[in-house]
Order: sequence, then C-alpha cells, then structure tokens
Amino acid sequence: MKRRVIAMFALVFALAFGSLATAQAADPLPSWNDGEAKQSIIAFVTRVTKEGSSEFVSPAERIATFDNDGTLWAEQPLYFQLLFALDRVKRLAPQHPEWKDKEPFASLLEGDVQAALAGGDRAILEIVMATHAGMTTAEFEQVVKEWLATAKHPTTKRPFTEMVYQPMLEVLAYLRANGFKTFIASGGGIEFMRPWTERVYGIPPEQVIGSSIKTKLEVNDGKPVLVRLPELNFLDDKEGKPVAINQHIGRRPIAAFGNSDGDLQMLQWTTAGEGPRFALYVRHTDAEREWAYDRESSIGRFDKGLDEARAKGWTVVDMKQDWKVIYPPEKK
Amino acid sequence: MKRRVIAMFALVFALAFGSLATAQAADPLPSWNDGEAKQSIIAFVTRVTKEGSSEFVSPAERIATFDNDGTLWAEQPLYFQLLFALDRVKRLAPQHPEWKDKEPFASLLEGDVQAALAGGDRAILEIVMATHAGMTTAEFEQVVKEWLATAKHPTTKRPFTEMVYQPMLEVLAYLRANGFKTFIASGGGIEFMRPWTERVYGIPPEQVIGSSIKTKLEVNDGKPVLVRLPELNFLDDKEGKPVAINQHIGRRPIAAFGNSDGDLQMLQWTTAGEGPRFALYVRHTDAEREWAYDRESSIGRFDKGLDEARAKGWTVVDMKQDWKVIYPPEKK
Repeated sequence: MKRRVIAMFALVFALAFGSLATAQAADPLPSWNDGEAKQSIIAFVTRVTKEGSSEFVSPAERIATFDNDGTLWAEQPLYFQLLFALDRVKRLAPQHPEWKDKEPFASLLEGDVQAALAGGDRAILEIVMATHAGMTTAEFEQVVKEWLATAKHPTTKRPFTEMVYQPMLEVLAYLRANGFKTFIASGGGIEFMRPWTERVYGIPPEQVIGSSIKTKLEVNDGKPVLVRLPELNFLDDKEGKPVAINQHIGRRPIAAFGNSDGDLQMLQWTTAGEGPRFALYVRHTDAEREWAYDRESSIGRFDKGLDEARAKGWTVVDMKQDWKVIYPPEKK
Repeated sequence: MKRRVIAMFALVFALAFGSLATAQAADPLPSWNDGEAKQSIIAFVTRVTKEGSSEFVSPAERIATFDNDGTLWAEQPLYFQLLFALDRVKRLAPQHPEWKDKEPFASLLEGDVQAALAGGDRAILEIVMATHAGMTTAEFEQVVKEWLATAKHPTTKRPFTEMVYQPMLEVLAYLRANGFKTFIASGGGIEFMRPWTERVYGIPPEQVIGSSIKTKLEVNDGKPVLVRLPELNFLDDKEGKPVAINQHIGRRPIAAFGNSDGDLQMLQWTTAGEGPRFALYVRHTDAEREWAYDRESSIGRFDKGLDEARAKGWTVVDMKQDWKVIYPPEKK
C-alpha cells in the first residue's frame, strides 16, 4: 500500500509540475544572449548539481558570493552609498554650522563634489563617519529606507534600487533554484545594504557581508539599543573579502562574482579550493545603455583582475554583447 | 483538469505524510517532563506560527539564537575549549622548550591546572593564543576535528560531542520544523565550533557566531590561505553578544536561549523587540546526572540573570525537574 501511494505521489507531482520545470530549464537566463558567458554559468551549475557525478557538490556546500557595486547594481557616476552620504551632508548641514569652514564638507555644501573628494580616502571616511554614525542601528535603517524611497539617480532619474542588473537577478534566482545559498560580499556598508537586499535581490540580511563601523550596546530609557560609532570596524575589500567571508560563512564559496580589482582576492580564494569552482567578472563595456570603464577608472577599476581572468580562463561578461537588457522594466 | 490534479496531489500528500505529522505534533519535546518550561516553549512556537493571528511572525523573522557552553553542551569541570587548549599545550610542548620556565605553561606542564589558571583572563588568553594561532584556518579545523575524534571528558569518559543536551537538540529540531533559523551565539571560538555544529546540532557554519581571533590573507606556494594571528578580533560575551548578532544576522532574534550572566544582554536585546518574544535560561540543578551550580560558580555564573529572569517572567529550566534525560544515548 505504501509503495503504491508513493508511486501515485510521484506521478501527480510529475503531472502538476513537469511542464513548469521543462519551461524553466529551457532558459533560466532569458536576459542573456547566447554566448560563452551564459553557457559557462549553465555548464557549471549543471556539473555541480548532477547527482552521482564525481563533481557533484552537496547543497550545503553550494555557496556563491557576489560583490554588489558594479556587479549587482550600477556604481557610476559615484558609488550610490557615497551619493547617499552627500545628500545626508546637505540634510544635516543646519545642525553643523562648523562644516561651512571645514573640508571636505565646505566644498560639498558649495556643490563642488570633485573638490570635496580630492582629499581621497580620508575625505570619504570623514564624510561617511559624519553621516553614518551617531545614531542607533534602527535609526540608521530608517534613514536608508527613506532615502531609497525618494532619491533618484542623477542621470537615469530612476530609483537606485531599480538600477540593478536584470541579468544578474536571473543568475541569483537560477543559483537558488539549484540549491545554492547566495551571499553578498561588498566593500559597501553592511547596514546600508541590509534594509533592501531581501526585497530587491532575494538575499536576506544574514547573507549580507560588507564593510562596517563599530557599534556599542547602550541602554536608553531602560531599552537596549546599538549605537553606531564613528570608528571603522572592518573594510571588506581586496584582502578583506576572504577574511570576512570566512568570518561570516565559515565555508569557502564554490562560485564568486565581481567586477573590479577589489574582488580579485575573493575570486582567487574561491577558485583555490578543491573540486569544481566558478569565477565571473562583469566588465562594463556599454557606454550607451550603462557605462564603459575598466583599467583607468577610479571607481571599479578592472585591471589586474582582467589580466588574471584571461590568464586563468575565468568568465568575463561583456555587458554590451552578453546582456539583452541592463535594468529591470521601470515600475509604474 | 489542472484543479483536479492539484486536488489529487493534496490527497496523496495527506495520505502519505498525514500520520507522520500527527505523530510528531503529539510530542515535539519527548525528553522534557510536562511542566511550565516545556509548555512555555510550545506555547510560544504555536503563537508565532498561527497564520492570520496578530502575533504571527513571518518565517524570515523567525530567528532564534543559542548560547553554546552550558546551554547546548556541558561546560564542567572547565569549558571544553579550554580542555582542548590544555591538551594542545602538552602536544606542542616539545616545540616550545621555553614553556618550562614560563607561566602559565610551566604549571600546566606540571599538571597543575589550578595554578596555571590563577593568572585569570590573561593566562587564559595566553594559552588560547599559543594553541589557536600561528596556523591556517584549514589546519586549525583539522586539529579540532582530530581532538574531538579521540578526546574524552575527564569524568564521564564520553566524547565531548556526546555531552550535548538531548532536550535542547529537540528544541532546535522543533524550532526548525516550525520555520525558525537557529543560530549559535557563543563566547566560545567561532572556528572551534564550526567543524562539528552541523553534524551535532544541525546548525551550519554560516549560522555560528562566536569569539574570534584575527586572520590575514597570505599566499603560500601560489595559493591563498588565511593565517590565524595571535590577536583577539572579537569577544562574543555579555555586551558583545547583541553587537555580534547584529553584525552577523542583521535582524533581532525573537527567541534566545542561555544559561549564564554572559547571556543576559542577548536575552535583554531579544526581548526588547516588538511583538512576541521568548527568553529561556537553562539552570544547572542536577548534581547527580550533570552538575549543580549558579550564583557562585566561576564557570557559567548565573546570578544577575536569574534575578532578571524571575522579575521578567522568562522561562527558567530546572534541569533536574524538567529533563528526563541529559545526554543522547551513547553511540556504539
């Protein structure tokens, strides 16, 4: 009796879902043009999910990490988190009269972003600390959500969370449909991403890794809160990415996706493990629909990474050639 | 046609799995005696999983965090990780002739643990750094696995991974069966736990939070490795637990489980959120089957936490009264 029930179960399952599964298998990456890049993704997923094969990877070990800026969403003309910080400097300026005479704030408030950022990493760090610290984690989350709900990209005029790459959303979904756990490992702020990554990418907060400032437990009106301190905790870039991935995940990814030299160590770390491995670089080649930049760019520089990808045969996506569309359709 | 297929599907599903589900629902916590503690766990899970109820919590938000030492496994006569470190001092002694004249190592090598630990936290830190650093993360994982495969507890003579609490294993499984994601948040070392938590608790490495030392990416023979440095990265105890939970998970748990004052801030942080919340303390009251200790103990002191649990009506498990068994059956 039991065996008959299971057989019926299998039959009904096949009837109900068989056609759906076939349709999906037909093209899991519809926004990708047929080509080496697309084929390499599908070939890797097929290899590691084939039961009984010597290359089969158990679902628990199917970890994939994605850079965010320039890999999952755009990063021009400036990292979006930096645009957020600049907007916030303007918003907070009335409470900081001293900023009128203090760089990098003075230049920023006069509208001269170039001059403000001439101070390099130190100027950026000052701007970040002035705009990201001195409040609770719950307050910061609210500030990020409010900004994303109203801010528009300077050239496309679209909300920033719509400037994500449709072909990469399909890769995320395709990997998850094949038992992968998808993580972000970004140089961007961990608490700047978490309020929206689940809605936009399907990646929950506990699978977001990023740079962070220190926080401290305090008690306000009898309630514990976490206060954000103006002190760097961890910079999740370059050599920092494997360190943070190990700290958060405790396993080595089998697939990693990036777009710049800042992701090179993550891709090296990922591919140095045993068994089948996959590394993919998104190359920005589409000046018309997105931006074209690589070896000379100050944002998202892709130079050493490009050489190594070619030497090692990693997948390099040519946005202009490989992607049918860049962004998802505009929301009404 | 389609609707008929779905109805058949539902029917077969019910036939195949209905009886199993009923059996499980009958008693999800068979090693617990009936009493307030057991009832409070079941009542909470029932409340937050009842669809349509105002107290319903979406599966994504069903986060539960567990302390490890004294909550999921035993911690007497010394934290097991400290026993590991002591064994390792003996193993490494031939490579460190200078230890013969240097505390805390000299006392340890003479077999006088009390004298070695008289140096307090500083002595412990020195022992930990000497035994946990100076190798790659992969090498350390191997060392931990080898120790666990052979080491026996000094009084029970059982492997340490069998000195986990059977009633708590049932709580972990019960929560997961109800859509919870279970995490460890322990003062113990994150890399000391990850090699075995999945097998023993069903908790994967990416859901383990703990104390850590710093690591650094290096390249050995052309291969990237993470080297463990003799420098504390984060102490995941007391005020550190909410900080680390926020850093790793990015959501506030709705349920937290501990056994000592070191867990108090985690329980406060958990219960300070909105909506239904659950906090549970395991109290060590069973001198016969386990150990009995609380307010005066140097290991797992439970003093302020006990007062606060009583004042706030948190669940306090009385091991002697509430648990039918302590450990799982011995493996043959």
